[in-house]
Amino acid sequence: MSLVPPRTAPTTPYTFEKSRAAFDRALSVIPSGIYGHQGPTEGCYIPQTSFPLFSSRAEGSRFWDLDDNEYIDYMCGYGPNVLGYRDPDVDAAAARQAKLEDVVTIPSAIMVDFAELLVDTVASADWAFFAKNGGDATTLAVMTARAATRRKKIVFINGFYHGVAPWTQKLDYPGVLEEEVANNLYVDFNDLPALERLFSEHRGSIAGLIAQPYMHGNFTDNTLPEAGYWQAVRALCDAHGVVLIVDDVRAGFRLDLAGSDHYFGFKADLICFCKALANGYNVSALCGRESLKDTVSSLSYTGSYWMSAVPFAAGIATLTKLKQLDAPTQFQRLGTELTTGLTSAAAEHGFTLIASGAPALFYLRIADDDSLMLHQEWVAECVRRGVFLTSHHNHFINAALTSADITRTLEIAHEAFGIVRSSHPELELTR
Amino acid sequence: MSLVPPRTAPTTPYTFEKSRAAFDRALSVIPSGIYGHQGPTEGCYIPQTSFPLFSSRAEGSRFWDLDDNEYIDYMCGYGPNVLGYRDPDVDAAAARQAKLEDVVTIPSAIMVDFAELLVDTVASADWAFFAKNGGDATTLAVMTARAATRRKKIVFINGFYHGVAPWTQKLDYPGVLEEEVANNLYVDFNDLPALERLFSEHRGSIAGLIAQPYMHGNFTDNTLPEAGYWQAVRALCDAHGVVLIVDDVRAGFRLDLAGSDHYFGFKADLICFCKALANGYNVSALCGRESLKDTVSSLSYTGSYWMSAVPFAAGIATLTKLKQLDAPTQFQRLGTELTTGLTSAAAEHGFTLIASGAPALFYLRIADDDSLMLHQEWVAECVRRGVFLTSHHNHFINAALTSADITRTLEIAHEAFGIVRSSHPELELTR
Repeated sequence: MSLVPPRTAPTTPYTFEKSRAAFDRALSVIPSGIYGHQGPTEGCYIPQTSFPLFSSRAEGSRFWDLDDNEYIDYMCGYGPNVLGYRDPDVDAAAARQAKLEDVVTIPSAIMVDFAELLVDTVASADWAFFAKNGGDATTLAVMTARAATRRKKIVFINGFYHGVAPWTQKLDYPGVLEEEVANNLYVDFNDLPALERLFSEHRGSIAGLIAQPYMHGNFTDNTLPEAGYWQAVRALCDAHGVVLIVDDVRAGFRLDLAGSDHYFGFKADLICFCKALANGYNVSALCGRESLKDTVSSLSYTGSYWMSAVPFAAGIATLTKLKQLDAPTQFQRLGTELTTGLTSAAAEHGFTLIASGAPALFYLRIADDDSLMLHQEWVAECVRRGVFLTSHHNHFINAALTSADITRTLEIAHEAFGIVRSSHPELELTR
Repeated sequence: MSLVPPRTAPTTPYTFEKSRAAFDRALSVIPSGIYGHQGPTEGCYIPQTSFPLFSSRAEGSRFWDLDDNEYIDYMCGYGPNVLGYRDPDVDAAAARQAKLEDVVTIPSAIMVDFAELLVDTVASADWAFFAKNGGDATTLAVMTARAATRRKKIVFINGFYHGVAPWTQKLDYPGVLEEEVANNLYVDFNDLPALERLFSEHRGSIAGLIAQPYMHGNFTDNTLPEAGYWQAVRALCDAHGVVLIVDDVRAGFRLDLAGSDHYFGFKADLICFCKALANGYNVSALCGRESLKDTVSSLSYTGSYWMSAVPFAAGIATLTKLKQLDAPTQFQRLGTELTTGLTSAAAEHGFTLIASGAPALFYLRIADDDSLMLHQEWVAECVRRGVFLTSHHNHFINAALTSADITRTLEIAHEAFGIVRSSHPELELTR
């Protein structure tokens, strides 16, 4: 009982027999079967029956699941896919390096090339330190702030995510000790008076403030900084001798190749990169200003794979191509085209769809239902028809996405809104 | 003035002009230039003038530095190189997978294949959880022990190394808070009475005991477990409800493909793998017993690259080939052949060279000089002639190493002992 006729022929919803069979095997040898965001018990919050669990191949803007269902992918591996899956230029650079060496007893000099490129590219980077996880970079940043200031406390912004190390988890999470989070202070984003009070109250004991460049948290509309916010935070940190750490793991290189702090018109002391740094090849980086370089050198911090050469080659190719494409401008354009179209499609069916955050990392919410279940239903109908969105996490745009992909996405989204509308005759239209 | 004539023509020591030039560049854009073990300021403790700083290519048992000097490599990238650099079978499996997908929004089913292989291979593994760093696995193990027992304290063995997370660093290390190590208890290896006292003293508050399968620490002869030690530790952990965590990151798959706990005749509750798991492809794993699986599922623990498919393909190829080769037996034979030869060569020049630990991960020390400087000199002369040893860290054997490599190594080691002897006429001979 669609109120608005679909613009294209109805699609046949996907089924997931092979994914389910593989998941049954997974459950017996892997905790949760699949863990993290991709896990069926948390993260995506797509009803399981509408959820592919395993992929089989990927290329450009798309991946195919184990049942060979095809998806236009708006999650991009939760960030790493920034140029398109299996980008030929990045893969060729990685393959060339792999024919020489990867993990060796002493590092390849390509590590220096990559550090020089980052220092040339990122406005707040006087140096780069490489690791593997985004959390390796945020942990090093916090340790550096503490070592440099000989203070203990770290200010977090409510709604934060900085990885899974105990220091950045919550007190009530399993396996986390109260001692490990005892020096954490919390304040709301965009609330300068509260930050001023916190800084005054703990004068001389705050080592660092760690924050994403804007609030791209889960289960809530994403929030951009108010005019002057970051400049005021920068001034407060300077006045109190607090190290300002920007966690650009998620947004990095999608807003501005010079760093998301540069995008918002301020300069971090330390900035953490990971996901988009090498188009899926495994590397993260902490960059920062000259005055903190010796402190980083003084720490005991290394790992088995941290100087592997192939990800450095991939990272150089990725940043080079992102510059050639002026990718952040492209992401802004594609993300705006998509979210504008999705919002219009929702309105045609009497729904209010809110798109928030930067268009390159758009967050979606159907505002007509506070329980968010309506939103989950709509996402599920999209996923079952080949558009991989997620329910309560920001999405990601990649450079392989085309306007044709967006057109097809809008057709499927339109059909999905119609289906949700039909199955909820009790809902009032918002127009 | 060599007292024993060299058995081969003298070699010309290497020089490192290109490495030094690259290091000068590195110093300006990377903290320390090179960090960790590979760094010139710590780790290897080879006099810098005898130290290549950057590699250019690697194959089999060898790598070449930036000045094209060739090395027989006994460090194996500090462990990951277990089959030989650029092993053709592993690289082919990785390349096949890379043509399909690597990091995608949902995992590849090859993750399940790898977990099943580990469960089949590792005696104490009922399940596997994959991450990136060895430290990701040790951190997850400690969090799991705390969550499962609802206790706080962790017992460490003096001389431990479990990665660089704050919880496993020392109180006096920069960037580490007293709160983060406040629940750590310490005991000596092989000291059962002390462990019994510690367990009694802290009855009901110890969550876990984390230990390497034997003490392969730095700056000291490596120590194997005394007969019955591990069986007694296992019984004590059972009696006190303490989770027994084996950190097999360094020794794993070099002593026994079923796990180093299996090698020493006991069964861990949790066992951590990394280095040798995929011949340099970037993956680590926590394995463990069924009773802890749900606890692992309950933790908030994931990362951007943790389900990347290429390292899983490489890991499957690596474990399969290690089994085909019966690699641990080969490592034992090659390591024994090498260390026996080195000890004899030392004796010919009047030095006492002590080889300790498992032959597959041999640790060397010239015992005639408590300052260890004589040992550093000898290592430096070996490195400058194409045998890459290190000074105060265990070494690693890989499956590409040949008896011809060992013969050449012994020739160079012999020459190096002669040079050190000549430059120290003041030293008394030990025979």
